[in-house]
Amino acid sequence: MMASIEAGGTKFVCAVGTGPHDLRAVTSFPTTTPDETLAQAIAFVREQEELAGQSVSALGVACFGPVDLRTDSPTFGHITSTPKPGWGGTDVVGTFRQALGVPVGFDTDVNGAALAESRWGAGQGLDPVVYVTVGTGIGAGALVNRQLLHGLLHPEVGHVLVRRHPEDTFEGVCPYHGDCLEGLAAGPALQARWQRRPADLGPLRDQAVAMESWYLAQLATMLMYLLSPERIVFGGGVTKLPGLLPALRKDAVSIVNGYIDAPAATTDIDSYIVPPGLGDQAGILGGLALAQRAVSR
Amino acid sequence: MMASIEAGGTKFVCAVGTGPHDLRAVTSFPTTTPDETLAQAIAFVREQEELAGQSVSALGVACFGPVDLRTDSPTFGHITSTPKPGWGGTDVVGTFRQALGVPVGFDTDVNGAALAESRWGAGQGLDPVVYVTVGTGIGAGALVNRQLLHGLLHPEVGHVLVRRHPEDTFEGVCPYHGDCLEGLAAGPALQARWQRRPADLGPLRDQAVAMESWYLAQLATMLMYLLSPERIVFGGGVTKLPGLLPALRKDAVSIVNGYIDAPAATTDIDSYIVPPGLGDQAGILGGLALAQRAVSR
Ligand SMILES: Nc1ncnc2c1ncn2[C@@H]1O[C@H](COP(=O)(O)OP(=O)(O)O)[C@@H](O)[C@H]1O
Ligand SMILES: Nc1ncnc2c1ncn2[C@@H]1O[C@H](COP(=O)(O)OP(=O)(O)O)[C@@H](O)[C@H]1O
Ligand SMILES: [Zn+2]
Ligand SMILES: [Zn+2]
Repeated sequence: MMASIEAGGTKFVCAVGTGPHDLRAVTSFPTTTPDETLAQAIAFVREQEELAGQSVSALGVACFGPVDLRTDSPTFGHITSTPKPGWGGTDVVGTFRQALGVPVGFDTDVNGAALAESRWGAGQGLDPVVYVTVGTGIGAGALVNRQLLHGLLHPEVGHVLVRRHPEDTFEGVCPYHGDCLEGLAAGPALQARWQRRPADLGPLRDQAVAMESWYLAQLATMLMYLLSPERIVFGGGVTKLPGLLPALRKDAVSIVNGYIDAPAATTDIDSYIVPPGLGDQAGILGGLALAQRAVSR
Repeated sequence: MMASIEAGGTKFVCAVGTGPHDLRAVTSFPTTTPDETLAQAIAFVREQEELAGQSVSALGVACFGPVDLRTDSPTFGHITSTPKPGWGGTDVVGTFRQALGVPVGFDTDVNGAALAESRWGAGQGLDPVVYVTVGTGIGAGALVNRQLLHGLLHPEVGHVLVRRHPEDTFEGVCPYHGDCLEGLAAGPALQARWQRRPADLGPLRDQAVAMESWYLAQLATMLMYLLSPERIVFGGGVTKLPGLLPALRKDAVSIVNGYIDAPAATTDIDSYIVPPGLGDQAGILGGLALAQRAVSR
């Protein structure tokens, strides 16, 4: 039995289990201060150990960021410079390791989801495989050459510059860039442009979907051109907009315009750009996959 | 002693040797028909073997594309669908292996250059590391998690959509996309926009450099956001434009605008975006690095 934490900026989700068919006691609570929130997660694990009459052999944390992933860094496993009050500099891995005394797997929330999708979901047997989330922000995780993609820092795909939609006069909401991808296409941008919740667009939906798919298709084609994944998984709240995924596929095919000579970029686009195979559980199963990986190393 | 071939669409460069300080008999000839050109390369290797009184232990080919890199594919080592007359379907690896009877390392020209730069040049000890060439076309190779980046197909960064420069009214020359990156910023685009050879821009140079750096900086920041390399090497004829690299660095820093919280994207940009450590030999040394890799496998 292992423990998993999907540590989000809004809420923490915790569970114990061994895989997608054995995920138990899924529990969530709001993210408050680091002290309180991490203590609550630790209490959850201890409780589950008592209930099950056995200890967890590892913990995995799929964490909101930015985080330090360099194993040779003195601040490995810390949250670094986050706008979230109080959380900058929090030693997530150290706190859990000390409290629980087990190996702690740690990576970004999106890398966790990418790993879980590659192990149990839509990315099985594929490499590279990318998991994109479009929600409060836009982020991506990737498995490349059988390992999660790290680097200078973990990928920050949300802030790429995109070509604007000709009918889009919205200035964008990114505090750094205004009209970068996230500034134009994440949930808060939709909310600000259309002045209503993305789930309640009503008659504006067609126009909103057309713009949204144009922006996300640019991200999809950038990924195809730069990283050449064998499949791209699109998850997150905004991808629930009815009609968005089909429109995104169509726009991606039209942007590539036959240049990428592979069925994935033409006839097979429906099985190339896909929703998460694990549905809304990609995140929490990401933590579990990270726990398993921490043990197998 | 090993043999290296930098197989370009315009010319083939051949050499034998053991590394950057022992690269011998560098010879080049125009790329004509596959039969004639491959035979000439084979004759070169045999000649060098006779001269040296020893056989080569392997050959590496850094090849123009598109090529099939999937080792489990029946057309592995072939050039696939190229506009270059006669070359579509050419079995490069098979031809050399049969003629020379030694292991043949094979990858794209840019992946070869990325491998050589990572082994002997500007990318030593870094991972991921990206090599970009801006010449007749725009391409990139990358080493990620200690292996060359392959995937659905090898990366085709040249054709990403970029945001247009506000003063650029040129329609672009890409036959697939018009104003994609390559259509706006490779050598032939410069030639067409300014109606003179890029080396002879004269008083137009400042304006040309400003546009060019704006487009290439978008590629650099896309790479930073999507692949997170520890260094990006920019080579190829167009990067010889005086002032281009400094302008590109400045534009990249200004596009990122402080969002990437790493010295590489701010104060250390001069050592982050760099010219090839191996100069114009990155390509031919790429073949040699591929040969070495073929043996060590
Ligand atoms: N049915 C829906 N249609 C469109 N947008 C939605 C829908 N449900 C949620 N969203 C948007 O998704 C965002 C939340 O994304 P989600 O992936 O659930 O969370 P987070 O990114 O915070 O982890 C919100 O901005 C919300 O407006
Ligand atoms: N000094 C220079 N300044 C600007 N552009 C140059 C210069 N030298 C060559 N070029 C351009 O670079 C292109 C050739 O690039 P190169 O990397 O040498 O070859 P290729 O891409 O064909 O392998 C041509 O389009 C040429 O116009
Ligand atoms: Zn931004
Ligand atoms: Zn193009």
